[in-house]
Amino acid sequence: MTKKRYQLMKEWLVEARLKVLIWMNEDFAVEEKSNRSDLVTEVDRKVQDFLVRKITQHFPEDEILAEESGLDQTSITGKAVWVIDPIDGTLNFATQRDNFAMLVGYYQNGIGQFGFIYDVMKNKLFSGGRGFGVFLNEQPLSAPVPKDFSQGLIGVNSGIYRDNYHHVTELADQTLGVRMIGSAGLEFCSLLEGKILGYISFLCPWDYAAGIVLTDIFGFSFSDLDGNPPDFKTRQPFMIFQNNLYDKALEILQAP
Amino acid sequence: MTKKRYQLMKEWLVEARLKVLIWMNEDFAVEEKSNRSDLVTEVDRKVQDFLVRKITQHFPEDEILAEESGLDQTSITGKAVWVIDPIDGTLNFATQRDNFAMLVGYYQNGIGQFGFIYDVMKNKLFSGGRGFGVFLNEQPLSAPVPKDFSQGLIGVNSGIYRDNYHHVTELADQTLGVRMIGSAGLEFCSLLEGKILGYISFLCPWDYAAGIVLTDIFGFSFSDLDGNPPDFKTRQPFMIFQNNLYDKALEILQAP
Repeated sequence: MTKKRYQLMKEWLVEARLKVLIWMNEDFAVEEKSNRSDLVTEVDRKVQDFLVRKITQHFPEDEILAEESGLDQTSITGKAVWVIDPIDGTLNFATQRDNFAMLVGYYQNGIGQFGFIYDVMKNKLFSGGRGFGVFLNEQPLSAPVPKDFSQGLIGVNSGIYRDNYHHVTELADQTLGVRMIGSAGLEFCSLLEGKILGYISFLCPWDYAAGIVLTDIFGFSFSDLDGNPPDFKTRQPFMIFQNNLYDKALEILQAP
Repeated sequence: MTKKRYQLMKEWLVEARLKVLIWMNEDFAVEEKSNRSDLVTEVDRKVQDFLVRKITQHFPEDEILAEESGLDQTSITGKAVWVIDPIDGTLNFATQRDNFAMLVGYYQNGIGQFGFIYDVMKNKLFSGGRGFGVFLNEQPLSAPVPKDFSQGLIGVNSGIYRDNYHHVTELADQTLGVRMIGSAGLEFCSLLEGKILGYISFLCPWDYAAGIVLTDIFGFSFSDLDGNPPDFKTRQPFMIFQNNLYDKALEILQAP
């Protein structure tokens, strides 16, 4: 049944993307959540409602952990749990109508089975799962070639970089530089395509649930900044690096 | 003759883009210039050589100010001066094969006549000039709607942001946040499309020559961080904002 869920969700996401392209050009409400730059739009809610409706129609016993509409407390440990961020990069979506993604991960007993990251404006759907690889649209992707810090860029959250949180700037100095896109989902795409070596931010479960399933297939390592697995509950510091760089990155970030 | 130059350069850039798409998938040499993250590739040189050859064939008396191959000292004040950055965002080009642009500006007696910014991977050619507007590919673009700081994002250079150079972080705090793309040309595209309100970086003449011609048509204001015009000679601090925000931005950046 995992395969059927994968196939159906892929179809639903293609449908949802076409809806987003229409909705984004209509007037839509924007609301602040915790602060001025933490937004939710009517489109976030409509995308989530669309996906939730599809899931509950086809798989009424599945559980859903999602960013909006009070679904943010579901535990990941259930038998069949979908993790959804309907619009990742809402601030970009609201101000740029660009640089955002739809994210869906599917977990069984806490273990990721498959994930989707849909870069809506570039029409690039990254998908894949345990045992069947990673795809960009219908093409199989290969794992990025391992590189050294001195050969690539990293993605960082602006506040973390500015505050030199956990020595992030010292780590950045070993690389060729930092980039900030404003969407965790798109940072995961950059990791999958080998465009960045690693990524450090504060993330919620729906920000990383899809991405870690896909990057795991390509041998990336991730954790909070103390080296512990993320909790799938709260907003936490989060790091992910190519396997060959993870230990070295953690050592720098954990220095006293 | 300006119109003929504009039309020809547009054709040459379309041709150059196709060459880049081929060259980027071949092995190419990468060299460091002033430091590890200041790179020039064989592709930069080949693109510049291609454009320079075209210009000198058709307009043998025109002068050229360009990033590579010792053409970086030409004065902008000549009768007919082309300003070229063959690959803007070379670090992105070399490490990502994405997020870079070809930039060409054309100046007469120090005054910008037209400019081109070509986002190679998105195939988006921004072009335009004095008296005939701004185009994205063949479609006329409209000037972005003026917004307040609290309604949008800004682009910044990572070092400037990290060091709080000229109070940049205080300015950033009045906005919804910062983004870092790693290509001045692409930041100018974001300005033209209304995706960012302003941009602050260290730039060389070939980084801004094309962009300021285009953004000028849409009523943006630019200067160094002391409010003086850029010198078209050296690498300088550079700021550009929507007209309604420029004075306020300069005031924050100049605070003691």
